[in-house]
Amino acid sequence: MIRITTLNGGTMTRQKFVENLLKRADVKTAARGEAFAPANIALCKYWGKRDAELNLPVNSSLSISLGKLGTRTVVKFAKSADRIFLNGKHAPKAFAARLSAYLDLFRADGQFFEVRTKNNIPTAAGLASSASGFAALIKALDQLMGWGFNPRELSMLARLGSGSATRSLYDGFAIWNAGQRADGMDSYAEPLDAPWDSLRVGILEVSKARKKTGSTEGMNRTRETSELYEAWPAQADCDYDELRTAIVAQDFPMLGKTAENNALAMHATMMAAWPPLCYWKPQSVSLMHKVWAAREEGLELYFTMDAGPNLKLLFLQENQAAVKKLFPKVQVVIPFSS
Amino acid sequence: MIRITTLNGGTMTRQKFVENLLKRADVKTAARGEAFAPANIALCKYWGKRDAELNLPVNSSLSISLGKLGTRTVVKFAKSADRIFLNGKHAPKAFAARLSAYLDLFRADGQFFEVRTKNNIPTAAGLASSASGFAALIKALDQLMGWGFNPRELSMLARLGSGSATRSLYDGFAIWNAGQRADGMDSYAEPLDAPWDSLRVGILEVSKARKKTGSTEGMNRTRETSELYEAWPAQADCDYDELRTAIVAQDFPMLGKTAENNALAMHATMMAAWPPLCYWKPQSVSLMHKVWAAREEGLELYFTMDAGPNLKLLFLQENQAAVKKLFPKVQVVIPFSS
Repeated sequence: MIRITTLNGGTMTRQKFVENLLKRADVKTAARGEAFAPANIALCKYWGKRDAELNLPVNSSLSISLGKLGTRTVVKFAKSADRIFLNGKHAPKAFAARLSAYLDLFRADGQFFEVRTKNNIPTAAGLASSASGFAALIKALDQLMGWGFNPRELSMLARLGSGSATRSLYDGFAIWNAGQRADGMDSYAEPLDAPWDSLRVGILEVSKARKKTGSTEGMNRTRETSELYEAWPAQADCDYDELRTAIVAQDFPMLGKTAENNALAMHATMMAAWPPLCYWKPQSVSLMHKVWAAREEGLELYFTMDAGPNLKLLFLQENQAAVKKLFPKVQVVIPFSS
Repeated sequence: MIRITTLNGGTMTRQKFVENLLKRADVKTAARGEAFAPANIALCKYWGKRDAELNLPVNSSLSISLGKLGTRTVVKFAKSADRIFLNGKHAPKAFAARLSAYLDLFRADGQFFEVRTKNNIPTAAGLASSASGFAALIKALDQLMGWGFNPRELSMLARLGSGSATRSLYDGFAIWNAGQRADGMDSYAEPLDAPWDSLRVGILEVSKARKKTGSTEGMNRTRETSELYEAWPAQADCDYDELRTAIVAQDFPMLGKTAENNALAMHATMMAAWPPLCYWKPQSVSLMHKVWAAREEGLELYFTMDAGPNLKLLFLQENQAAVKKLFPKVQVVIPFSS
């Protein structure tokens, strides 16, 4: 095993990053802010930070937002302490602490917030809610504080809460430019305007248990100990370009193949880490073999997986019936439903 | 996905390779040849050919032979056709054809052989027999033909039958030098004289079904389509050095960690291939998680896996009872039994 050489990272704190942006904002607070942001699934994964403080990624990533599935958040000012509600109840401590720490970046002395956040993602879906959660929060906060940031700026602020939140500012396809600057000002997300009505995402849940190793810890361990990770940035760059080409051309096999290969390569870099990092459960492997067998028989079906055991199928509307027959428990999402 | 650049390979045929070696042999045939060769398990894997014709590997590998588990072969001359027996019965067609094709490299015009080969490896063990098979065959053939080759030369001839057979010429630890020459004359195996009496190998069988994708096809697909494979040769070189250090120092955690990481990295390169190559079955993943959980609780237990679904545990004699309790079906092998 060989150590990976460290990439250049910045030395800026996230507080300083926020201050730099706020300088440019014309502040005029409102009574409340309310916003919705969609969940997103990466087709080219974000895997590895070049700067942990500012959540700057090693590679650019590309995602598809899940339409109406996501998070709606209302923010108001509060009197003596933050009050955080999740799905109508007082939020669990760890959740509230993470949000309050994020709010620290924006609050003036003695300023507190009431945050009411609701996920309409079925809890059984095995989808991370931090992406849509931080994106909805920063949008709502922007209204409350009267900053008037544009989506790019909001995507950079969402990034400080959770890397994948950077991409949840948009509907449809979104790209997150890794950027090169140490101050992170070129690491933002943009929409890729390419509606694809017949595209379907199918969620196959293997487990809803909280994962033992979080994504940040997983990325760091992989970057620090997995020699195969050395080949990841080049693969991700290449996949990112191929996905953009596939989306513009609406070439579904190219999209599916590239997304599946990208996800498996990401998981491969983890398995070669030490201690080995394997988010797969036995049932994950069983489902993968089932997808591969169906594809060998001619079904245009691919999958992607995040840092967890669940599969997200990719297919076209015309194959929805066949997919549902093979996987009766699949939850079908229509990303471009209008 | 990016294509891997092709490594330099030779242009020599295996027939020419054999002729070059035979020139130096003083031939005086005997009535029969008989030899035993042990099975071996690679701790640093052979994964990728730099020359498919001569079975020259991309990287050096290191193995441990399994003592008395292996293949015993008797060879005689036959009259009008090869006669191949496996475990006392006429060998299956594919098996006989592969052996006859190998014997073609050595036979004079009109010369035929009777080969009687027996494996004492329990068929349930999920161990490849081609390594011990070709090693035993070439040793027996050397006696019959009166070549008087030394083990290094025999290891190079065994290599032409099956890459991993190169390492089955020796008891204990063996190293197969990848070599650099296009004619393959520096790609041979040597023993590593370092007996380790307390070392144990435990075989956990997941499936005895013939694998759908053979090792050669798997290696080729990985080299041609898996971008992560680009990082493999450097990792293998490093693991090879670390294993040699661990063996000389009898540092078991270092041996186990390096072997497990090497095996997982090999499988990782396959998963990142296209189409994806996953030899793991759901039960393989279940057993891996069980090993990791036991290790977290302090048990010095590691595993390695070849291009198949079975696990080979690595542990020390002092932990044998604990391992048997965790895995009641494990088959324990003592590599250095005398």
